[in-house]
Amino acid sequence: PGVIPVPRQEQGRKVPAVSVETPAIPGVSGRAAPAGAVAFGVKHTEGVSVDVLFRGRAEPEPVSGAGARWPLDEGTVLRFSMSRASSEVNDNKVTVSFYAEGGKPINQAGVFLTGVGISLDVDADRDGVVEKNSPNKASWAWGPEGHGAILLVSCDKEFPFIPPSDCDSEPVFSREGNGSSNPLSPKSPLSPLCGNPEETSGNPDKRGFPVFPFPADPFFGQRYVQVLGRRKLFHAVPYPGGAAELHFFVEGLRFPDETFSGLVSIHVSLLEPLAEGIPHSPIFTDTVVFRVAPWIMTPNTLAPVNLLVCSMKDNYLFTKEIQSLVAKAGCKLKVCFGYINRGDRWMQDEIELGYTQAPHKSFPVVLDSPRERGMEQLPVKELLGPDFGYVHKEPLFEATASLDSFGNVEVSPPVSVAGKEYPLGRILIGSSFPASAGRRMTRLVRDFLYAQRVQAPVELYSDWLAMGNVNEFVTFVPSSDKKRFRMLLASPAACYRLFREKQKEGQGEATMFKGYSGTDTKRVTINKVLSNDVLAQQNQYVQRCIDWNRDILKKELGLLEEDIIDLPALFKLDKQGKAVPYFPNTVTMMVLAKDLGIPKPFGPVAGGECCLERRIRALLEPLGLRCLFLEDVASYHGSLGEVRCGTCVQRRPFAFQWWHFAP
Amino acid sequence: PGVIPVPRQEQGRKVPAVSVETPAIPGVSGRAAPAGAVAFGVKHTEGVSVDVLFRGRAEPEPVSGAGARWPLDEGTVLRFSMSRASSEVNDNKVTVSFYAEGGKPINQAGVFLTGVGISLDVDADRDGVVEKNSPNKASWAWGPEGHGAILLVSCDKEFPFIPPSDCDSEPVFSREGNGSSNPLSPKSPLSPLCGNPEETSGNPDKRGFPVFPFPADPFFGQRYVQVLGRRKLFHAVPYPGGAAELHFFVEGLRFPDETFSGLVSIHVSLLEPLAEGIPHSPIFTDTVVFRVAPWIMTPNTLAPVNLLVCSMKDNYLFTKEIQSLVAKAGCKLKVCFGYINRGDRWMQDEIELGYTQAPHKSFPVVLDSPRERGMEQLPVKELLGPDFGYVHKEPLFEATASLDSFGNVEVSPPVSVAGKEYPLGRILIGSSFPASAGRRMTRLVRDFLYAQRVQAPVELYSDWLAMGNVNEFVTFVPSSDKKRFRMLLASPAACYRLFREKQKEGQGEATMFKGYSGTDTKRVTINKVLSNDVLAQQNQYVQRCIDWNRDILKKELGLLEEDIIDLPALFKLDKQGKAVPYFPNTVTMMVLAKDLGIPKPFGPVAGGECCLERRIRALLEPLGLRCLFLEDVASYHGSLGEVRCGTCVQRRPFAFQWWHFAP
Repeated sequence: PGVIPVPRQEQGRKVPAVSVETPAIPGVSGRAAPAGAVAFGVKHTEGVSVDVLFRGRAEPEPVSGAGARWPLDEGTVLRFSMSRASSEVNDNKVTVSFYAEGGKPINQAGVFLTGVGISLDVDADRDGVVEKNSPNKASWAWGPEGHGAILLVSCDKEFPFIPPSDCDSEPVFSREGNGSSNPLSPKSPLSPLCGNPEETSGNPDKRGFPVFPFPADPFFGQRYVQVLGRRKLFHAVPYPGGAAELHFFVEGLRFPDETFSGLVSIHVSLLEPLAEGIPHSPIFTDTVVFRVAPWIMTPNTLAPVNLLVCSMKDNYLFTKEIQSLVAKAGCKLKVCFGYINRGDRWMQDEIELGYTQAPHKSFPVVLDSPRERGMEQLPVKELLGPDFGYVHKEPLFEATASLDSFGNVEVSPPVSVAGKEYPLGRILIGSSFPASAGRRMTRLVRDFLYAQRVQAPVELYSDWLAMGNVNEFVTFVPSSDKKRFRMLLASPAACYRLFREKQKEGQGEATMFKGYSGTDTKRVTINKVLSNDVLAQQNQYVQRCIDWNRDILKKELGLLEEDIIDLPALFKLDKQGKAVPYFPNTVTMMVLAKDLGIPKPFGPVAGGECCLERRIRALLEPLGLRCLFLEDVASYHGSLGEVRCGTCVQRRPFAFQWWHFAP
Repeated sequence: PGVIPVPRQEQGRKVPAVSVETPAIPGVSGRAAPAGAVAFGVKHTEGVSVDVLFRGRAEPEPVSGAGARWPLDEGTVLRFSMSRASSEVNDNKVTVSFYAEGGKPINQAGVFLTGVGISLDVDADRDGVVEKNSPNKASWAWGPEGHGAILLVSCDKEFPFIPPSDCDSEPVFSREGNGSSNPLSPKSPLSPLCGNPEETSGNPDKRGFPVFPFPADPFFGQRYVQVLGRRKLFHAVPYPGGAAELHFFVEGLRFPDETFSGLVSIHVSLLEPLAEGIPHSPIFTDTVVFRVAPWIMTPNTLAPVNLLVCSMKDNYLFTKEIQSLVAKAGCKLKVCFGYINRGDRWMQDEIELGYTQAPHKSFPVVLDSPRERGMEQLPVKELLGPDFGYVHKEPLFEATASLDSFGNVEVSPPVSVAGKEYPLGRILIGSSFPASAGRRMTRLVRDFLYAQRVQAPVELYSDWLAMGNVNEFVTFVPSSDKKRFRMLLASPAACYRLFREKQKEGQGEATMFKGYSGTDTKRVTINKVLSNDVLAQQNQYVQRCIDWNRDILKKELGLLEEDIIDLPALFKLDKQGKAVPYFPNTVTMMVLAKDLGIPKPFGPVAGGECCLERRIRALLEPLGLRCLFLEDVASYHGSLGEVRCGTCVQRRPFAFQWWHFAP
């Protein structure tokens, strides 16, 4: 990259023997010495540097003064380089003088050189500003010392009246600037790219990343004409003259996935016309590499911005209660009404709210689950918009199942695992047991999550549950101490311990499910629970399954026992041998900063207080958290979900920038 | 991996509160201390080690003598581990004694432990022998210090009477051992895998790598029954009793490609039945990782084993000449007759002969080009067989073109590039100019070559040629000096230099094409060539194109000018502006150890000798090479190919083992 010396042989006819090396090591090879010559000297103008490379010697010898002479050995090569573009054609020159034995000058040969400055410029140092000819622009490296430009996926929608479109399908919008009714100002997700081409042509990566030049349009702000794209791999720009600078903009069309690493190369080439009827010959190519910014999930420890919930016929009280919670947590409530939710209340299962980020811009992006149970219009109609992106992953052939619900995808807070930092946390995916042919999340979504690379997923065993979602046994809460978070696990063992304690205290006849609107209407006491051998066996099994995950989580998130809090829980097995909660599952809670919206467990009431609520408060309040127990039996628990499943939280992005991570 | 302590609480009823950690950090968590206890001590049998982990302390404290006591703090955890399997159930025990203030013993709690030894064993240290429970078997690392087992692709054919099959299609053979007529002994490409399962189940990778257990079959040697495969993800083995060892064999079904990294995981899990009607619960999973061995190309510097050539109506003399060459080089000649070649003479373009390798076995594998011009039955009918593999890459939808011929795939000898070693060389693929929408090799084959990873491909610019094959301008020859090889490049510049030299020597009227049977029958002299301005311009362009590649090759192969030899060549442009050789292209030569079969160039004859042949001898013979010029005009050159294109060489594998490379 930079200045390319274009040589032209001074004497005699044109010779096809001039070899120009790449500008990194420019030079001329050839055997032009006259007969009888045994030595040579070199003179050159100021704009050129010349090195002499001798066969078998690693280090070149620079030509400084004009007096030096070198023996004329076969294999000796002169290497020219120029660091400035020429102000006019052939304004630099290198002259080689040949000498006979005894030092008598015989003849001279020379080359005129014209330095052509050409560079594709990007923001390779990731400070949000395009720099001139960055030395690192042609490769991409992760980490705080890394380099390489970043491209946003154009997955938001600038104009609300344009029909929504999946960013995976192409074209997102018609971008042919032929006065169509879809003028587009894709300014937000575009990454700037500056070129200074003479006669140039660009070639995007195979994957088709459109490049737009940037003409002003008086009618509709700025309008862009696509010059490169999936079906337009080549764009010729005529020589603009002088030190012209052309501005191009680039957008990503898809997030990384199994078949797309996320890296995009764009080249600009200088071509020279040699003669009529002969193809133009390549002189120089400059390359820039972009990485498409990943989609990033936000853990419970990040501040909430928006809470989404569906308005149903039977959840008025629930949404009322949530309003107060949201007010306390200082975030907004967004209610999705019946004409959009169409009877589907499982907000958490339908969408996952994350974001994408480049040095010059960041915006939220909703990931739409392949699950389609009524609410599928929500993300496109209510969320997609200017600076709010949308991405959808739907398998072509596979049927979707319960494990495809996004209650089955969580993300941990930042963790450190055996010296390896995960400053954006790790994604948790519920899956089948490693050695079984059970249910798993559809490959397309799993591959998508892995391909983002910055939140390396961990697969857990959730297939033992009827719904099969990880949020039924694990969650994370912020803490005000130096650990900054705790992992909460559903724990039958903790529940049995608590109940036995209460039995010893003489509370064995304390009754569960008081005021409970669910189907279990029998009077259930602590004594009854503790004497139920089938329930004990089933919960022993459930505890084994959770402990299996506990071991994986401790290992993959680098957690100690003291980082984990066991929340009392009981399960029972259905006819298929899959676990469902015995009472509302408190681990499936909403986390809004320090305020927790916890499913009201309807535990044994002793001394006028639910002993489960009391235990949970005792476990969580010392961490600086506030517990609000929400009655969700009729509206959610009765349908095998909890409050968390009916809500979805948009959170602030990480302060940490993903490109500083090294996967 | 190893011995899993299976705990059983000693006192009282079964409690679902026992948490067993992974065997790497086995232990028991729980809060079992009696009221009033402030300290505890631990006793254990010989087969168990116990550590005490205190909250907030990084290092555990081992329990050695029985006298020590520890304060009973919340968060203190006991960790058990066992290094030997138990000889009978519950033969080990840990007892915890609790003490009140003042040291008065209060009560005891205890656990009986049974150590179950279970391990999937593979050859993770790559010495060809399966070792016991290798600590590195669950991950795969490249390099001389690397580890991880290796799997061969089952792409050869054990029994000649079984119809040939593409190893990409599944099943390769029917392997259901139900007395079918296709009994199979897939012993050669199978990698051994030993398991010692109690109640176990295995689960291969998503990609389906069949696992076969190994029963003896008196009728047909050994027969294998498939227990795991693409559609059989799970196989339960009943508890065999005692220290039983089961032997399984694994085969790969496909080489790595764009959608398959080559890594395969196989798990064995120990499941425990808890009670009637409750699913078995997972206790322990052991994992082994295999990498499927790549397909490896062999450069010209490796010793030839077999030379393949087609017998055509018009190439009798040519094959005769080749016979003598082959005899000198000490390799065999394999002639492909008309009923197989069906009029297609371009052996080099149809197939590429390479090999695959594991520590326990290596065999040649033919890569079949997507190009189908008559000879497509050759690799399956004549090459595929016992210990001779076959792989075919054919795009489903794309049409194949000239750049898909395997004359467009070469491989360099081992090179060192800026400190990075490529001990298996680098693959060279001819492609279009970086900034043009020209012809390229079909993505499927390019992706396949990249996915092998051990010979990192370099894409060159070959689209300027009518045939578009890299072997038209670059090849490699062995040398007897310390550099061990030279890169040869076609060079119009070198030809013009030579011709001008001859002109100066008074040989300007020397005539080319004497005895040439091609279509150019006009008398062509050095003077005529040198005064042809159009030819000079066209060759200036060709030289630019070759120099472009020279720069890439120097950079990507770490070559100096002195590693390169310019062979005189001339090209002319066809009506499409694509280059074809002006006289037989000597760089497209056969290399059989020190013997070169070079297309006879029919250059200007001066002093009874072709000056091109003389120059080429002068360039190559000092390297210890022998040049034989072969007349290929009628049989190959006239159809835009050369001798090399009509032949294919099977070579000895590298002594270097690919897994010692670090990509």
